[in-house]
Amino acid sequence: MNAEIISVGTELLLGHTINTDASFVARELSPVGINLLYACTVGDNPERLKTAIDTALRRSDILITTGGLGPTGDDLTKETAAAAAGKKLVMHRESMEHIERYFQGRTLGETQKKQAMLPEGCTVFPNDVGTAPGCGFRTQNGKLVAMLPGPPSELIPMLKHYAVPFLLQGSENAAIVSRIVRVFGLGEGYVAEQIADLCGRANPTCATYAKDGEMFVRVTARAETAEKAEAMCRPVVEDLKGRLGDFCYGIDVESLEDAVVRLLTEKRLTVATAESCTGGLLAKRITDIPGSSAVFHMGVVTYANEIKAKLLGVPEEILKQYGAVSPQTARRMAVGVRERSGSDFGIGITGIAGPGGGTPEKPVGLVYLALSDGKDVWVREMRRSARGKGRGYLRFLAASNALDMVRRRVLGLGGLEEAAYTREKRRG
Amino acid sequence: MNAEIISVGTELLLGHTINTDASFVARELSPVGINLLYACTVGDNPERLKTAIDTALRRSDILITTGGLGPTGDDLTKETAAAAAGKKLVMHRESMEHIERYFQGRTLGETQKKQAMLPEGCTVFPNDVGTAPGCGFRTQNGKLVAMLPGPPSELIPMLKHYAVPFLLQGSENAAIVSRIVRVFGLGEGYVAEQIADLCGRANPTCATYAKDGEMFVRVTARAETAEKAEAMCRPVVEDLKGRLGDFCYGIDVESLEDAVVRLLTEKRLTVATAESCTGGLLAKRITDIPGSSAVFHMGVVTYANEIKAKLLGVPEEILKQYGAVSPQTARRMAVGVRERSGSDFGIGITGIAGPGGGTPEKPVGLVYLALSDGKDVWVREMRRSARGKGRGYLRFLAASNALDMVRRRVLGLGGLEEAAYTREKRRG
Repeated sequence: MNAEIISVGTELLLGHTINTDASFVARELSPVGINLLYACTVGDNPERLKTAIDTALRRSDILITTGGLGPTGDDLTKETAAAAAGKKLVMHRESMEHIERYFQGRTLGETQKKQAMLPEGCTVFPNDVGTAPGCGFRTQNGKLVAMLPGPPSELIPMLKHYAVPFLLQGSENAAIVSRIVRVFGLGEGYVAEQIADLCGRANPTCATYAKDGEMFVRVTARAETAEKAEAMCRPVVEDLKGRLGDFCYGIDVESLEDAVVRLLTEKRLTVATAESCTGGLLAKRITDIPGSSAVFHMGVVTYANEIKAKLLGVPEEILKQYGAVSPQTARRMAVGVRERSGSDFGIGITGIAGPGGGTPEKPVGLVYLALSDGKDVWVREMRRSARGKGRGYLRFLAASNALDMVRRRVLGLGGLEEAAYTREKRRG
Repeated sequence: MNAEIISVGTELLLGHTINTDASFVARELSPVGINLLYACTVGDNPERLKTAIDTALRRSDILITTGGLGPTGDDLTKETAAAAAGKKLVMHRESMEHIERYFQGRTLGETQKKQAMLPEGCTVFPNDVGTAPGCGFRTQNGKLVAMLPGPPSELIPMLKHYAVPFLLQGSENAAIVSRIVRVFGLGEGYVAEQIADLCGRANPTCATYAKDGEMFVRVTARAETAEKAEAMCRPVVEDLKGRLGDFCYGIDVESLEDAVVRLLTEKRLTVATAESCTGGLLAKRITDIPGSSAVFHMGVVTYANEIKAKLLGVPEEILKQYGAVSPQTARRMAVGVRERSGSDFGIGITGIAGPGGGTPEKPVGLVYLALSDGKDVWVREMRRSARGKGRGYLRFLAASNALDMVRRRVLGLGGLEEAAYTREKRRG
């Protein structure tokens, strides 16, 4: 079945509010076999809303609206959708009582009552969080309409508990399952070429995405049941893992830091960080992950040279002879922070994030990353031009390289000293 | 002039990526008098994309597309839009050279080259960040089409620097000046009420926005020249500063950390950070700002209790008696990191970012922030419910509170120990 979302609200068209509702709805629909083909946003304007609803009811099997169910004069979704489907609005007693309870002790304005007016014969979706109920109904042409409130805190539970079961009622849906194959160290263009044959297939489909210096492949299969769809995904995911080799760092994980924190937790290992150019970003990314306190006890941001010496014991001769941005300094930072923290691994990062501070020998984008495990130290040199993406991009990429080194060391993979993307060049 | 956005990308319809591009575009258009009437999302499907483009060109004066300009096979926007407008794609030499420079030293795949194919006679929007150029052209019926890349880091500068000037070409009052008045510690709803009269005006316009626990007011004037538009903004900005008092932390600054780094640089002062629950985020935000090395020499992330004792000298009795999350611990962290770093100010942050670790006495969202200047120590207690926004939101807000304390101390303002948003409550 094909679906369409219409998000209603002038605030969305002014850019004041980012339309997250459409994403929430989309994320719930695809796993249950409903294909979202269009998502439209219209303002609080009855004519344009009517046109959008008419169009949706013509071309899609399912119409889901978000927003415009509230008490104010510009909340027009129910009136407009009911009229388009040739239905009258009638008072829904239970919803009225719910609203009265909600306003207990406060004056219940006339406008609040309009929230209990619903299309005749509809299935009511109770609002467990706010006042405006949602509802679903079938049009004379057999199209399904579901109307949901705009605030995400109200929309999300109503969608899961009432709207999705309503939409699936009595249907023989194809189930859809998606798997995310995450990759660090290969570019999207390169991967797209390597897996072009898989991307050309109809079911399962493969699509590549790039984000924040990483890329991922989404594999999506459709079948009668989720189990069958999942079984169809499996060989494709395995195929991808084979082709992408140890650049693939996880399936259905959220991020590189998520994968690394999971891995360290599982192996009961700890890591400490000493950061210069990344300025705390690596520690921040590790501690973004709930439960990271089990694997991360200490990080330092040694922005000034004397702090590198004082906190980490980087010898002043090293700083003088090779400079703060050098493999030697990175190495001493990693060793120093590991020793002082008592962690299994120590990471040292020093580099030039720009925009200032670059020289011909040490340009912006040059970063040295070191990993110490108490026995050996590995140093990776990252050279990336900022290419207008700037300081934030370089810092993020440097932190990602550090996470990649930890992952490779823990899993016993090679390539610790090999900068991300250099293998691609060699292979390509 | 009425405009319509078509966002292209199956990932948007799968809910994997939230469509922030449409909001960015909407925010730039409305202040310059372009009304956005529809925003639609379609997948990477040529037929449905064609239908959407045809519809938009029929009902709107301006069509803006986002996404689908990249190198892969499912990037179809240019091909489809050019065909709908009856234009051929031709190789754009400069864009090709830009792409070749971008890939210097790496293999340039055939698919990359397709990014330099642009509709004949178009205005090219250079991509200062990535490879895919954007472009704008006028159709035979006089409609304007602008095509922008999907990644926000590429879209935002292209929109501001090339697409908006292209769309306003030849119109009167083509000069637009926007000023951003940034506020920390007051909610958007409260500010909107205080400045409702200004928000009702046509030129300059005022609009409020909320983001990441802060809010800002955007003042936009249109006039024949930039000088005139700027002169029109000035009294409105002064009026806003008067009304918002010391909650206004800057005009046209990028962020709270930007304002604080500027202020410290100007006064030749330095700050050091000791973070527990924020895990390096405060240091990261400070060092996001180029030139921050002049004001920031050292930060520590003391995630484990023994590290708080070892690195910062927080007495173990304090940790035992009051707990790691306590005003006493925050105070000792601030004092300890200031002394060890030799900085003018020391910041200590300890709290419970969740989702786990909360208790009835110390719930998730409780954070203690301390600022030491070597003489006095101030402690701020932040109590905020995550309200479904979660760990990342609480951590960000805690770091913002710390920055606010530094700013208030340096400028000699009051309210160092007052949690953000409590004055509003008192005033309201």
